[in-house]
Amino acid sequence: MSELAMRAEKLDAADELREKRDAFVLDDVVYLDGNSLGALPAVVPGRVEDVVRRQWGELRIRSWEESGWWAAPERIGDRIAPLIGAAPGQVVVGDSTSVNVFKAVVGAVRMAGEGRDEILVDATTFPTDGYIAESAARMTGRTLRPVTPADVPGALGDRTAAVLLNHVDYRTGRLHDLPALTAAVHAAGAYVVWDLCHSAGALPVGLDEHGVDLAVGCTYKYLNGGPGSPAYLYVRRELQDRFDSPLPGWNSHAEPFGMRGDYEPASGALRGRVGTPDILSMLALEAALEVWDGVPVEAVRAKSLALTDFFLECVAEYVPEGRVECLTPVPHEERGSQIALRCPDAADVMKRLIERGVVGDFRAPDVLRFGFTPLYVGFADVERAARVLARTLA
Amino acid sequence: MSELAMRAEKLDAADELREKRDAFVLDDVVYLDGNSLGALPAVVPGRVEDVVRRQWGELRIRSWEESGWWAAPERIGDRIAPLIGAAPGQVVVGDSTSVNVFKAVVGAVRMAGEGRDEILVDATTFPTDGYIAESAARMTGRTLRPVTPADVPGALGDRTAAVLLNHVDYRTGRLHDLPALTAAVHAAGAYVVWDLCHSAGALPVGLDEHGVDLAVGCTYKYLNGGPGSPAYLYVRRELQDRFDSPLPGWNSHAEPFGMRGDYEPASGALRGRVGTPDILSMLALEAALEVWDGVPVEAVRAKSLALTDFFLECVAEYVPEGRVECLTPVPHEERGSQIALRCPDAADVMKRLIERGVVGDFRAPDVLRFGFTPLYVGFADVERAARVLARTLA
Repeated sequence: MSELAMRAEKLDAADELREKRDAFVLDDVVYLDGNSLGALPAVVPGRVEDVVRRQWGELRIRSWEESGWWAAPERIGDRIAPLIGAAPGQVVVGDSTSVNVFKAVVGAVRMAGEGRDEILVDATTFPTDGYIAESAARMTGRTLRPVTPADVPGALGDRTAAVLLNHVDYRTGRLHDLPALTAAVHAAGAYVVWDLCHSAGALPVGLDEHGVDLAVGCTYKYLNGGPGSPAYLYVRRELQDRFDSPLPGWNSHAEPFGMRGDYEPASGALRGRVGTPDILSMLALEAALEVWDGVPVEAVRAKSLALTDFFLECVAEYVPEGRVECLTPVPHEERGSQIALRCPDAADVMKRLIERGVVGDFRAPDVLRFGFTPLYVGFADVERAARVLARTLA
Repeated sequence: MSELAMRAEKLDAADELREKRDAFVLDDVVYLDGNSLGALPAVVPGRVEDVVRRQWGELRIRSWEESGWWAAPERIGDRIAPLIGAAPGQVVVGDSTSVNVFKAVVGAVRMAGEGRDEILVDATTFPTDGYIAESAARMTGRTLRPVTPADVPGALGDRTAAVLLNHVDYRTGRLHDLPALTAAVHAAGAYVVWDLCHSAGALPVGLDEHGVDLAVGCTYKYLNGGPGSPAYLYVRRELQDRFDSPLPGWNSHAEPFGMRGDYEPASGALRGRVGTPDILSMLALEAALEVWDGVPVEAVRAKSLALTDFFLECVAEYVPEGRVECLTPVPHEERGSQIALRCPDAADVMKRLIERGVVGDFRAPDVLRFGFTPLYVGFADVERAARVLARTLA
């Protein structure tokens, strides 16, 4: 056994989150793609079966009240809230991330008022945010200006209505400075929307603490909600009365069963709702969130950094120098919970890695992406992944 | 046994769709709320279990390709297509009905071009359509004008960009004349969007035959997809290249995994996609649609009319005259698959009906709504429902 393999054993033995692994359905694969689709929490299949067979099959329409279907978007929002540093009543679950980006960006622009005609968007963003921001700009008569997060402070001004940023870059795994950027946007009198897809569940976000205006995120990565599980929208409490949704469906009406012709928005987080929520996906997510019971996000962050540090160390030890280039920043304060390695034949390398039982993913044109989900990835997994990677690259 | 009960027995014996009832999980309740939430098809629980345990739990990320997750929105759209009279390649599944109304109305307005500044909307519509149409009008700089469907022909003109109509009224069950109204809208040079929530799966729609431009519908009523199962969007083939979605998410990109900064819309129905589809809800729907194998929509329509005719006959026989007023039109060509009865104490009456094993629903302020789903409601159910109603009203 190598020195690194022995280190891994010791690190696993000392890992306070180690037992959480038993809360997931796993096999002998090293699964480093939880930043794309989280593994299945063991509690989910039984819960989904109950939702389908009893709640839908037996209670049918009564379940909208009796099984708590109607209030699920707010209830599950409140379950996600502590993971992103939000007090209750500010998060609502439903729709896709893209649709929530549209609500949030249009909502932010409308808060900023008529005088401000520019929207800034992270030029390195996951593409859908940019496409949707472009549509939001077009439909609100604003101009969209893509800038790198580092250039945001210099680009802010009297014209800025809203800024859409990613907390962690989907490709490189770079963690952006949410407190400082939020403060800069506010100093310019503008509103900020944070996309938390690659940070929520992997590190502390602190939405309330840092005065974030609006935020969105998916739930199928570090929150393990299942394929395409519904996304969420955060609207800071003080802004909720001014949140003017571009998608004012009947679920966000003050009196949804009044069947009124005029739209009167509800107060609170549920103003972010639109149409009938997709109950099966939503209640699978609710079950999946139970694995977070008693897990402090700080412990997750500490383990995440330890895992990515250890991976970098193993890669440096095992992989010949110059064969890959690390795109993920080394300083902890700039690192999310993934490591992105650039190598020219990345597509082929990832294919062979997967055949050898190490699952990460490939991002065009030349990036190997490895996500480290602290609830179920251990240090021995990390050492093995680096070892198999070295063999594959050899 | 009463004469009507004997008639019911004979009608059930002659019912060619009778065996379809076995494809559903039912009990001794008379379930007349399938126009709100369809009953559970027996094939669904096993399929969902496979999706959760094997596709998500074992294959994990590989399922996006290997289990056909990625192409599910178009594949399931093609399964719905024949039920609404559409050739393949024109229907895509995903998002809620409200979100699809937004896509469709904005899309229609953009097709109509700059010169047309008015959107007509059914003034008697299910509220969400009106709220969303108002938002679409506001965001495209048009004026929204609510008119009753009967007044639409007179309201059409050079200013009309788009018209949003319901095929069947959610409250009264009135079936509107889709062919004639579509032709009138086209004669005015405008585009029509039909909401099929209360007609798809209950009667022939004929989208292609009648040259409908765009249509939306939910899948949890007569299509039995489960609570909040994803809605669908139809865009007529000839218009797809001109469909300019207000929600251009990465799933509708010509090259979704190219991670390109510029948005280039895909061709075909999938241009209506937005973000990551909610796979659990979507694949439950796909399983649910299997009950339609070998079922001609015409047979469903014939039975639907026979059921509602028989219900009206039983109500006339059992319920004291003047106690309820039927809001649903008597002529077949104006009737959907539900019967709406007005009575002053409707909320209380429905509560007691449900306690007595007859489940319909209440729509404020004074409507009892009974939906007749031909795949699993029989004539004996209908006779019993009317009998229990009469006893409850006595």
